[in-house]
Amino acid sequence: MLITSLENERVKKYNKLKERKYREKQQEFLVEGMHLVLEAYKKGQIIELILEKDEVLPLDLPTVYVTNEIIHRITSLETPTNIMALCKFPEEKPLGNRILILDGIQDPGNLGTIIRSAAAFHIDTIVLGENTVDLYNPKTIRSTQGMLFHVNVIKRELSSFLDELKEQNIPIYGTRVEYGEDVRSLHTNDKNKFALIMGNEGAGVSPEILEKCDKYLYIKMDDAVESLNVSIATSIILYELDRRD
Amino acid sequence: MLITSLENERVKKYNKLKERKYREKQQEFLVEGMHLVLEAYKKGQIIELILEKDEVLPLDLPTVYVTNEIIHRITSLETPTNIMALCKFPEEKPLGNRILILDGIQDPGNLGTIIRSAAAFHIDTIVLGENTVDLYNPKTIRSTQGMLFHVNVIKRELSSFLDELKEQNIPIYGTRVEYGEDVRSLHTNDKNKFALIMGNEGAGVSPEILEKCDKYLYIKMDDAVESLNVSIATSIILYELDRRD
Repeated sequence: MLITSLENERVKKYNKLKERKYREKQQEFLVEGMHLVLEAYKKGQIIELILEKDEVLPLDLPTVYVTNEIIHRITSLETPTNIMALCKFPEEKPLGNRILILDGIQDPGNLGTIIRSAAAFHIDTIVLGENTVDLYNPKTIRSTQGMLFHVNVIKRELSSFLDELKEQNIPIYGTRVEYGEDVRSLHTNDKNKFALIMGNEGAGVSPEILEKCDKYLYIKMDDAVESLNVSIATSIILYELDRRD
Repeated sequence: MLITSLENERVKKYNKLKERKYREKQQEFLVEGMHLVLEAYKKGQIIELILEKDEVLPLDLPTVYVTNEIIHRITSLETPTNIMALCKFPEEKPLGNRILILDGIQDPGNLGTIIRSAAAFHIDTIVLGENTVDLYNPKTIRSTQGMLFHVNVIKRELSSFLDELKEQNIPIYGTRVEYGEDVRSLHTNDKNKFALIMGNEGAGVSPEILEKCDKYLYIKMDDAVESLNVSIATSIILYELDRRD
């Protein structure tokens, strides 16, 4: 199928997927660029490929060809690529034993980078609190480098979710300098089953959430430095929680 | 002094400091917001404070008061603050024994975040190759969270700089998965004196630079994940190089 008109209903739909509300209603989103398209393909998440009309991509998928003008209409990039795909939201999977909870991360780049690190360090499920930036924000998707298809990401109201975890005896870790434990000193036993909570870039984890933690962790660093970027701090703790020695 | 005209020479100068070339000619740059201003103040880097006319900040410094209109002209922020400062470029300090070399980092946020982590994990000097994004880019400065005043940051032509390091018997570490050493297995002896090279977001370290390395490091992670974000990878390696146990 070749579409040439900006007024085509499919084009209008692709363009509308820039809005979070519409993505959530449709349970669909767009990815752009070869790398993301291939990661989505490997996980069976593609509904249809969207290619500029002279582009060739030998994947056995329904394909919609469009003009360069249409690509420019529907892209979220300054310099668009010729390869896009319409994807369905991944289905929720079981929680697993290694859980990362994000309470109020606001920067799409931080969220994407954290998802990439979580995939690298064997997190089973990432739980986004209600005040966290949208997973399907195009900037978030790009920053994940396709890793959003490799980790189970779900949304929850955090306060009641933490109560559920407590019933399941999953230890909850927060971060705090006072009364904290150096993340380097964690035992192997502490690393097999946990829910780590990381908070907002400026404010950290909400006080009412922090109260529910069983253990507090910190990263040892120079006294002159107040804190690390949240995606860095999260990644270092996940790296330690993945360490076996 | 109160300035009310956009045509004032100082206002023109502040505005021109948005250009890299002009910053380098003047050896001056602007910082915005209380946190950055206080970090610059502590290190004696402020030439003059720039405050919106009703703002009060009890620091013993030359102060220029300006109108809200002028703040909007000279800011690099979408939502400007009422507190800015004109700073001088920090002076170069001796190299020290713990060196981080950046070869072609392009994203200002990544550079800023790396500087913040380098300060946290006791790096003495950061060396920027010629193809690396500008240290005084406003986005870089914001991402450092003021830590650019805590680490010695210098610019060098990397190939000849590496030859100098070799003459000084400083071991050079690169990152590469093949033939690499797990960063977790580094000995304390490897952590006291080194130059770690990290490369461009997409392309990594240039081949001619990589050839000059004495040792290659990697971060153990899930096979499905090709790489981490460069600021994450750098921070995890610096964290390990700061570890003593």
